[in-house]
Amino acid sequence: MSEDRQWTAALAVIGDEILSGRTQDKNVAQLALWLNEQGIRLTEVRIVPDDTGRIVEAVNALRTTHDYLFTTGGIGPTHDDITVDAIAVAFGVPVAVHPQARQILEDYYRDRPGGLTEARLRMARVPEGAELIPNSSSGAPGVKMDNVYILAGVPQIAASMIESLTGKLAGGKPVVSVTIGARAAESEVADMLRETEAENPGVAIGSYPFFRDGRHGANFVIRSEDGELARRTGETLSSRLREAGYQPVEGGI
Amino acid sequence: MSEDRQWTAALAVIGDEILSGRTQDKNVAQLALWLNEQGIRLTEVRIVPDDTGRIVEAVNALRTTHDYLFTTGGIGPTHDDITVDAIAVAFGVPVAVHPQARQILEDYYRDRPGGLTEARLRMARVPEGAELIPNSSSGAPGVKMDNVYILAGVPQIAASMIESLTGKLAGGKPVVSVTIGARAAESEVADMLRETEAENPGVAIGSYPFFRDGRHGANFVIRSEDGELARRTGETLSSRLREAGYQPVEGGI
Repeated sequence: MSEDRQWTAALAVIGDEILSGRTQDKNVAQLALWLNEQGIRLTEVRIVPDDTGRIVEAVNALRTTHDYLFTTGGIGPTHDDITVDAIAVAFGVPVAVHPQARQILEDYYRDRPGGLTEARLRMARVPEGAELIPNSSSGAPGVKMDNVYILAGVPQIAASMIESLTGKLAGGKPVVSVTIGARAAESEVADMLRETEAENPGVAIGSYPFFRDGRHGANFVIRSEDGELARRTGETLSSRLREAGYQPVEGGI
Repeated sequence: MSEDRQWTAALAVIGDEILSGRTQDKNVAQLALWLNEQGIRLTEVRIVPDDTGRIVEAVNALRTTHDYLFTTGGIGPTHDDITVDAIAVAFGVPVAVHPQARQILEDYYRDRPGGLTEARLRMARVPEGAELIPNSSSGAPGVKMDNVYILAGVPQIAASMIESLTGKLAGGKPVVSVTIGARAAESEVADMLRETEAENPGVAIGSYPFFRDGRHGANFVIRSEDGELARRTGETLSSRLREAGYQPVEGGI
């Protein structure tokens, strides 16, 4: 396997609450940043409703076209939590209670009011053949089925699940990004950006405009797997901005 | 066309900055809430990179399976703004300068430094046959191509574009949601939720747990196109929560 192989991941966000606008998703950004540290590129996200058919379709489309697929949402104890069942359908396997997950829940709920109810026991169910993903912040574990990583929807719990996976997934080089901000309308520097990118194969330059305190500005993000190249390109862009009369701000505005 | 027809929309978020985790998306929630007011259900979102092939694939998959497709991002003046070109490819038409868009940009940039540069004129380019979507907050308009609505990525600008479309899209009944919060671990009330939903065909009940101030809680969202039914179901759920010893909070916690 070549060192230069690019490792990719997709994310399926499962949840009516995101598609209704009720809840602001935070897992996309959180997972994207963490994946980059693992040398894995997040290259597609799909947000789908709490509907078995739609989950199966997204999971099967994404798990076969990416090295990794993550899902968030729908693994709690209530009737609208259907992710595990849907992923079992996607793999064509039955759902089974995972003995270790059951043990974790028994321990977790032993001294809690109500104990291990049938609803809570739902959270020990996994697609047959799956492994567990440790969860240090609440009882129920995440689930790994082949290359699919099933995470909680609550961002803090999803965070503790991915934390337990840190350094354990095969990946390549992290992408290094260098950000240069300027109080420039991006349309004034469009040619400069295009030329700087064209002269430096291996970098991608993104331009992200904003309007703040009554003034236009933009952040230019130089991304590359070659950190030295990203830094050099950042210096080139800074000089050019300065020559054109702008005050470049390293790290962005 | 039946009154009960459900109108659906998809959203394609175009942008490396979202997939890298650099930028927190805000357009999904904003568009979802607005669509609901128009009686249109957002039923899928895909986030794809700034890559022509990937944009074309997502656009063609989503525009043919939904009444409406919205896109956000990639319509500015810089080299990484390729949405218009990609959507022209998706429709198999050339890109052309739209005379009215050119006029808008000429007026907008007449008294601004630099005037209407070639980079800025890029923002007058549309897939041949497209119409414009007014933009009251900055110069460049959005673009409507068949059932595809091409919006800016900056949330404030996207907001002003959808504002101009308010009341103009064919839609059905808005979904009404009633939210009841309680300081309950959702696993304690899972049976109650399932039964309440089963007894009230036409409603969907979602359960959204949180952990705040050291205590568990959850919000239960009852959704229906029948507002009266949603309200009645909310009252039923509130009584049941009260009977079980919880203090229901109308409107959620």
